[in-house]
Amino acid sequence: MIVELISVGTELLLGNIVNTNAAFLAGQCALLGLSMYHQSVVGDNEERLAETIQTALDRSDIVILSGGLGPTQDDITKETAAKVLNIPLVEDVHSRERIEEYFKNSQFKIITDNNWKQAQVPEGCIVVDNKNGTAPGIIMEKNGKSVILLPGPPNELIPMFKNDIFPYLNKLQPEIIYSVMVKICGLGESYVETKIVDLIDNQTNPTIATYAKTGEVHLRVTARASDDKEAKKLVKPVIKELKTRFGEHIYSTDENTTLEETIIALLKEKNLTLTTAESCTGGLLAARLTNVSGVSEVFKQGFVTYSNRAKRKLLDVKKNTLKIFGAVSEKTAKEMAKNGAFVTGSDVCVSITGLAGPNGGTQEKPVGLVYIACCYNNTITVKEFHFKGERNKIRELATVNALTLLRECILSNSDREKNAKEKTEKI
Amino acid sequence: MIVELISVGTELLLGNIVNTNAAFLAGQCALLGLSMYHQSVVGDNEERLAETIQTALDRSDIVILSGGLGPTQDDITKETAAKVLNIPLVEDVHSRERIEEYFKNSQFKIITDNNWKQAQVPEGCIVVDNKNGTAPGIIMEKNGKSVILLPGPPNELIPMFKNDIFPYLNKLQPEIIYSVMVKICGLGESYVETKIVDLIDNQTNPTIATYAKTGEVHLRVTARASDDKEAKKLVKPVIKELKTRFGEHIYSTDENTTLEETIIALLKEKNLTLTTAESCTGGLLAARLTNVSGVSEVFKQGFVTYSNRAKRKLLDVKKNTLKIFGAVSEKTAKEMAKNGAFVTGSDVCVSITGLAGPNGGTQEKPVGLVYIACCYNNTITVKEFHFKGERNKIRELATVNALTLLRECILSNSDREKNAKEKTEKI
Repeated sequence: MIVELISVGTELLLGNIVNTNAAFLAGQCALLGLSMYHQSVVGDNEERLAETIQTALDRSDIVILSGGLGPTQDDITKETAAKVLNIPLVEDVHSRERIEEYFKNSQFKIITDNNWKQAQVPEGCIVVDNKNGTAPGIIMEKNGKSVILLPGPPNELIPMFKNDIFPYLNKLQPEIIYSVMVKICGLGESYVETKIVDLIDNQTNPTIATYAKTGEVHLRVTARASDDKEAKKLVKPVIKELKTRFGEHIYSTDENTTLEETIIALLKEKNLTLTTAESCTGGLLAARLTNVSGVSEVFKQGFVTYSNRAKRKLLDVKKNTLKIFGAVSEKTAKEMAKNGAFVTGSDVCVSITGLAGPNGGTQEKPVGLVYIACCYNNTITVKEFHFKGERNKIRELATVNALTLLRECILSNSDREKNAKEKTEKI
Repeated sequence: MIVELISVGTELLLGNIVNTNAAFLAGQCALLGLSMYHQSVVGDNEERLAETIQTALDRSDIVILSGGLGPTQDDITKETAAKVLNIPLVEDVHSRERIEEYFKNSQFKIITDNNWKQAQVPEGCIVVDNKNGTAPGIIMEKNGKSVILLPGPPNELIPMFKNDIFPYLNKLQPEIIYSVMVKICGLGESYVETKIVDLIDNQTNPTIATYAKTGEVHLRVTARASDDKEAKKLVKPVIKELKTRFGEHIYSTDENTTLEETIIALLKEKNLTLTTAESCTGGLLAARLTNVSGVSEVFKQGFVTYSNRAKRKLLDVKKNTLKIFGAVSEKTAKEMAKNGAFVTGSDVCVSITGLAGPNGGTQEKPVGLVYIACCYNNTITVKEFHFKGERNKIRELATVNALTLLRECILSNSDREKNAKEKTEKI
């Protein structure tokens, strides 16, 4: 089946906003196994919008429109789409009640006349409730084709698509689609691809797609089957095989879980407290950790020790270490991590020191050289990295690799503790 | 003149990347005063691409294509566009030399045969050098219409557009366009709009457009005139008027300068050192400051004191302050700022403490309540904020408002010093 996207909105034509909706919808359609050959952006102009919808209908089975469902005169997507399909608009009692309800709970208590425009729907259509706004989603079916209207704001469009439109489109097809995202850290994209080249070469159903993220690699395993149970059965052995090949480098198989969330969960589970000691990342690591709600149970404080004096004063890095080895060195990273844990009484401390550039690099210590250390249980692990890219890219890569090292240290230490315990028990 | 965008790339149709090029190009075209009614996305498929180009040529004066100029078999934008316009491809000696030069300086020394494909250009076209890659930009002119081909990677497309395509398009028009961006902090969007409603109502040339950014408002003043000198003359009195109305709230009139850059420059100019003491923002303020290259001259260290214990231990916040007033209070913010400056020996310290949510809010202290304090010259300024939005939004708003308060304190303190000095001189 062929699907096509039409994004409606003058703000897109003026470049005031980036069309993230199109990327989201395209990704979801690919996941559903639908073919997409065209995307269009058009303004709130009846003639041009009608023409664009007609062209899309002529060449595609499913047309998804986003934007232009608001209460103002400018918003004409619903009216125009209904006109093209020759379907009259009627009032939907349920939508009217939902609008009343929405305003009752909102800070704007007064419903103006134009709000009722949003309760008008094409006769016989499927009305999809909008849990985050007043414009309902609409599905029109005619002559074997589907036209789907979605509200423009991403915080309304995304949940509506996931909850209602995805299942609807999945049902239109002879086979359903089921996928699992396998999230990998600590390995490069090409290494990951080499390790699964045999699986990719032989894949038919399920398929494996690779996505390179900053410092991470995500693998999407997608199966098509006649029902959910069958699809899950197809995916299961592939996930098992990937777990065998990548082991603990897989930090999650949940679409919505981030690396920092798994680390915070791990720290909570093991009842460990954490400190960060950052130089070149200047707070990025702490900022990423503290974006996880409930982090305060395990993350008590962090240091941004940008200057040598701060490294000495706050983290007790030795004067001679800085003098002989320099601020960007294995030894400085180690002392930062060790003393960071000590001065705060934390169980774990991660430190980062490096050259983010663009200036300050030398032949011996080029821009991109970063040392990351982790101190846990008096054991210090340190790694040397050579990152490529601009200042912000280097800082981001350093941050995600610090998270990865932190996770590795907690996991390997747990293994060691477990082994030690087993040994003791044997004795 | 009517302009139209065509983005070429299967990765856009699969939702693997967000089309930021379209937003950039649309914004630039709006700035040039060109009318845009359509944007399209199409894959690397000759038939569909040719059809899309033909449709665009039928309804627009200028067609800008991006993507599909690479060296592989998949990349067919140039070949297809030349075919639609019925122009043969010929080898461009200059481009061939540039490709040789590029590979000489790159880590990949071997030029494969398909690389020479990028030296083939439509006969009689304008070839635009690519300073950041091997694919040159191309401008074809035929029957009074222009077709412009740009490379897909944003780091190649953006500089090429700014340096070469913008001036080319500007010259196509009877009038040139000149604009200045006035960047305002510390004032809300609706306040700014109310203050200039008379200017906006009466505007013809230059025009003023408002852009709301997180915690900032940007005003673009755009003039059309027969030449650059005339345009600048038109813009000048409007900028002067805006400076009168918004005074020191304007932190820059330079398109590329960020708020944190102006602050770092201000600190350097006044020879001041800075410390940050963050709770709910967890390092975001320090991370934003340290993304400015050369910040190390003024920013020596920062604290992330997430727990009460860290606030007490690292920043010497009184036990009673936390007990009686709580961690999220004016008093805690003040002590964090004052002691942060004291313990590090810095001239200035900014502190942030608040509730970013989604949990932990009470009737008395709801989610979004944030206190920001700044200590400079033993004077402490503190402000209370009530931010709306999700966790990350609240953290971002707190960060930009801390930057704004920091700037205000340095500027007002300088005024005071200046006044005191003037007074002394009078005596």
